[in-house]
Amino acid sequence: MTETIGFIGLGNMGSPMAINLLKAGYNMRVYNRDLSKTQTLVDAGAKRGVRPSDVVEHGGIVITMLANDEALEAVTLGIDGILTHLSPGGIHISMSTVSPDLARKMQKLHEQQGCHYVAAPVFGRPEAAAARQLWIAEAGHPEAKKRVRPILDALGQGIFDFGEEAANANVVKISGNFLLASAMEAMGEAFTLGEKNGVERTKMYELFTQTLFACPAYKSYGKRIAEKNFEPVGFTMQLALKDINLVLDSAKEVVSPMPLASHLSNRLLSGIARGRSDRDWSELSRGVLDDAGIE
Amino acid sequence: MTETIGFIGLGNMGSPMAINLLKAGYNMRVYNRDLSKTQTLVDAGAKRGVRPSDVVEHGGIVITMLANDEALEAVTLGIDGILTHLSPGGIHISMSTVSPDLARKMQKLHEQQGCHYVAAPVFGRPEAAAARQLWIAEAGHPEAKKRVRPILDALGQGIFDFGEEAANANVVKISGNFLLASAMEAMGEAFTLGEKNGVERTKMYELFTQTLFACPAYKSYGKRIAEKNFEPVGFTMQLALKDINLVLDSAKEVVSPMPLASHLSNRLLSGIARGRSDRDWSELSRGVLDDAGIE
Amino acid sequence: MTETIGFIGLGNMGSPMAINLLKAGYNMRVYNRDLSKTQTLVDAGAKRGVRPSDVVEHGGIVITMLANDEALEAVTLGIDGILTHLSPGGIHISMSTVSPDLARKMQKLHEQQGCHYVAAPVFGRPEAAAARQLWIAEAGHPEAKKRVRPILDALGQGIFDFGEEAANANVVKISGNFLLASAMEAMGEAFTLGEKNGVERTKMYELFTQTLFACPAYKSYGKRIAEKNFEPVGFTMQLALKDINLVLDSAKEVVSPMPLASHLSNRLLSGIARGRSDRDWSELSRGVLDDAGIE
Amino acid sequence: MTETIGFIGLGNMGSPMAINLLKAGYNMRVYNRDLSKTQTLVDAGAKRGVRPSDVVEHGGIVITMLANDEALEAVTLGIDGILTHLSPGGIHISMSTVSPDLARKMQKLHEQQGCHYVAAPVFGRPEAAAARQLWIAEAGHPEAKKRVRPILDALGQGIFDFGEEAANANVVKISGNFLLASAMEAMGEAFTLGEKNGVERTKMYELFTQTLFACPAYKSYGKRIAEKNFEPVGFTMQLALKDINLVLDSAKEVVSPMPLASHLSNRLLSGIARGRSDRDWSELSRGVLDDAGIE
Repeated sequence: MTETIGFIGLGNMGSPMAINLLKAGYNMRVYNRDLSKTQTLVDAGAKRGVRPSDVVEHGGIVITMLANDEALEAVTLGIDGILTHLSPGGIHISMSTVSPDLARKMQKLHEQQGCHYVAAPVFGRPEAAAARQLWIAEAGHPEAKKRVRPILDALGQGIFDFGEEAANANVVKISGNFLLASAMEAMGEAFTLGEKNGVERTKMYELFTQTLFACPAYKSYGKRIAEKNFEPVGFTMQLALKDINLVLDSAKEVVSPMPLASHLSNRLLSGIARGRSDRDWSELSRGVLDDAGIE
Repeated sequence: MTETIGFIGLGNMGSPMAINLLKAGYNMRVYNRDLSKTQTLVDAGAKRGVRPSDVVEHGGIVITMLANDEALEAVTLGIDGILTHLSPGGIHISMSTVSPDLARKMQKLHEQQGCHYVAAPVFGRPEAAAARQLWIAEAGHPEAKKRVRPILDALGQGIFDFGEEAANANVVKISGNFLLASAMEAMGEAFTLGEKNGVERTKMYELFTQTLFACPAYKSYGKRIAEKNFEPVGFTMQLALKDINLVLDSAKEVVSPMPLASHLSNRLLSGIARGRSDRDWSELSRGVLDDAGIE
Repeated sequence: MTETIGFIGLGNMGSPMAINLLKAGYNMRVYNRDLSKTQTLVDAGAKRGVRPSDVVEHGGIVITMLANDEALEAVTLGIDGILTHLSPGGIHISMSTVSPDLARKMQKLHEQQGCHYVAAPVFGRPEAAAARQLWIAEAGHPEAKKRVRPILDALGQGIFDFGEEAANANVVKISGNFLLASAMEAMGEAFTLGEKNGVERTKMYELFTQTLFACPAYKSYGKRIAEKNFEPVGFTMQLALKDINLVLDSAKEVVSPMPLASHLSNRLLSGIARGRSDRDWSELSRGVLDDAGIE
Repeated sequence: MTETIGFIGLGNMGSPMAINLLKAGYNMRVYNRDLSKTQTLVDAGAKRGVRPSDVVEHGGIVITMLANDEALEAVTLGIDGILTHLSPGGIHISMSTVSPDLARKMQKLHEQQGCHYVAAPVFGRPEAAAARQLWIAEAGHPEAKKRVRPILDALGQGIFDFGEEAANANVVKISGNFLLASAMEAMGEAFTLGEKNGVERTKMYELFTQTLFACPAYKSYGKRIAEKNFEPVGFTMQLALKDINLVLDSAKEVVSPMPLASHLSNRLLSGIARGRSDRDWSELSRGVLDDAGIE
């Protein structure tokens, strides 16, 4: 493989993903706002850019893995942004968790410039990224998806296609985070009910995750919630609130009431008000304990 | 095996369970308020009683599998109830989903009479009961649990022990139903958000149940919710409301706020107000569609 | 006036009410479970009974002002209860806040015995009771209501009639407490939003209670909530929870979802879990502060 | 009085307000995006501008009464906006219901240009505006407030001062709309509980609004809710949702969970999903009826 990929955003997730692409044999140019984070990749063979546009080739492929809508706009638009340097025929694989609304705008802008915007947000924590065990929801133009398929295969263990509208993949991604947070709230309430009745939280956890809820979401987050041990931090309360707010924004836009999402928003907000902004999002379940007057 | 078991309550769940015990070689006496439902068991070799006490032997074992607290009290207490005929040394295996509060009272009453009350509520639909694939949460006196173990093994695929307090098993059971209903609400909201954004519900279902939520609860109920096809009815809205109310009653008693359980109570109540009382409880997710103005 | 009234229940509310009836010229027999509380009334001219039935005359009038359903049942039914001694033609004026369901049963039982049950729950704190400024919701048989009218006039400043079904008056009473608690929650959220934005709580209170919300409910409770000063205790969190639960029980019975009532139930429960059981119910608004991480 | 006031925004509220200023003797220049709406004012003596800046005098006073943040930005900023034409020493009285966040930005921008931004949002329906019975919450620079006081006096029946931070007045305004919507939800739930118990809604309304809740908010909105008659439309569901969302946005910004506001947001969203976007906001209470399965 001789294709060169531009990779922008080398955080907890982006860094191991970029490493995997290097390992898979791709040439790579990397950019990160905080340049110091590029060193690992440079050591592994990537070239460093100092502006987003530096890592983009006309007609090439660039991947972005960023924290939020603002960051994606910042590296895509403007004089040093990737958009103008990418066309024609280039593909922007946007793997960040951003709003469906921004995905719609981005897809349109890219098409107007003669290139493609493929949304490919991922499910999985940094360990999963490192182990190539991400799950990917993709959506975008069929030709573009076909071309980027080998790249996505090098990053994850499974790809789910959601059609041509890029925004669809983002709807699915934020829905997934909503489902996870919902499961945490439910376990938090159930285990606390148990505890106050004199039942061991971990015993309940064992039954449920060996039977009806024998799946990664309940096993991984349930363990933390049952044991009230929320270390290490994988994904912060603050970021979780951002995502639940993306859910609520989309719900508002398409006029679809989501009372459970609203509750989660307040739960997270309350945790943040109590100083847990940078704690793991599973700690939202601590709100149940607060309300029940226990620790 | 020559032990004779009394079995009371031959509904959708109790009937296949009793059949399995017959198949396992136990002698059996059966009672059901509606006597006609005993015929299948009698044809299979059981003896029919016309009062609850008819199926009880002094020092023997009796299983109850009934609809609610009232039914359990009705067959246990009173002149024809099983309690007085069971002692001394007998064991009452109570497999119904009843309130932790009633379990506490029952355990005490049985102990006062010199016999044991083992709570052993089950997880699983009628098909699972027939296939001996129930999961059982048990709690009660250690000796009693030891004696009834072969019987429970003949009914389910796994037993989880929750100590000596019978009520604990019931707390776990109602918590499980709460977790299931929570998952349904969450999927209902997520799939509807998707639908209103133009994403296929079943596509979302596929991704989630093959990845983070690859477990029986999400697979079985999620399919119904994604497809909006709630047939056949396995467990009614009305019974689900009963169980969520048991959760809320227990939460009130132990002073543990459960906002998600409260929401589910209102969701079910609203479905019942719209005439869905006898529909499957997964149809609680239709409330999300109602609120979103779609079908 | 020479009519003798039996009065049962001399708590914070009952005591000043009974005093007012003595002042109005009625003869009175009083009963209270804790007999020591009868002394004030006896000093003022009432006769003391040692059993509920002692204060009842055949065909006479008895008033009950008690804490809850259980207390009302205890003094009404049974061998020393008022019901058997009251008939025929007697009237039981039930002024306690009890469940509509109990009111239905009581009215039926009284009618079966040839006497009347008039529900006449009141709005107002102990000071209002002392000042004859209670508001009364009444319901029951027309003849009975006519006969007791002078008595109720001696207790309150206004009477609202809700027809012949006694339970109706109780529905109205518990709905009133629900409306009050709802207003407290709303003010709690609004004033805290203000505070966190740098707006003085008391300034907001002033605007609202001089304009749109210039009424006793907002003025009296709003002042406490704005100033975060919940002393003295007029009506406890525990009793408020009892009433909101009566609302939810009735809502369940008539199949009418009440999400705001559910929320209030959790709000009160959480306050109680934090040790505020005997604090004034306006302190439910402290839950908003807890959630916002401020004092 | 010879001062000339610029007035922008002649909708249901702005039009009667402008008329009152003309009546009070002010000279007036008016602008409205839909110019046809200026005719009434022109007939009454005002001069018409065709751009926002046309109605502004250097150092003068301009009032804006617009639908939302976007509209306020549109007339204030930009080449034809009022801001550049107003300074130095001019005052912009912003009476619209806008976000506290925008008020903060606007105040800063105006100060940078050497003029003042006074927030003066109002409480009251169009009838109240016509009758000079608005209540006004004001905040801004003391000098500016002093100069505009006679103008505000000509528009309302009372002015409440919230200090120097313009945004504070907007926090109060949106909090007021939140309190109103909360009261509607509460009454909706209470009256429906009554109805399903067989109690007349209007009877409940009468008791509550003659006693604890004898105030304009409960009297005016309660009547509609009790009678289920939501005509005529004074303030639409869509605008109410906008305001509740301003509340939630501010709550998010200052990290203050507001579960009741979240619920109202979903209630309004659901009404809009059912096609009630342009109905009166008191019709949010119809959601309670929907949930209860009645009309």
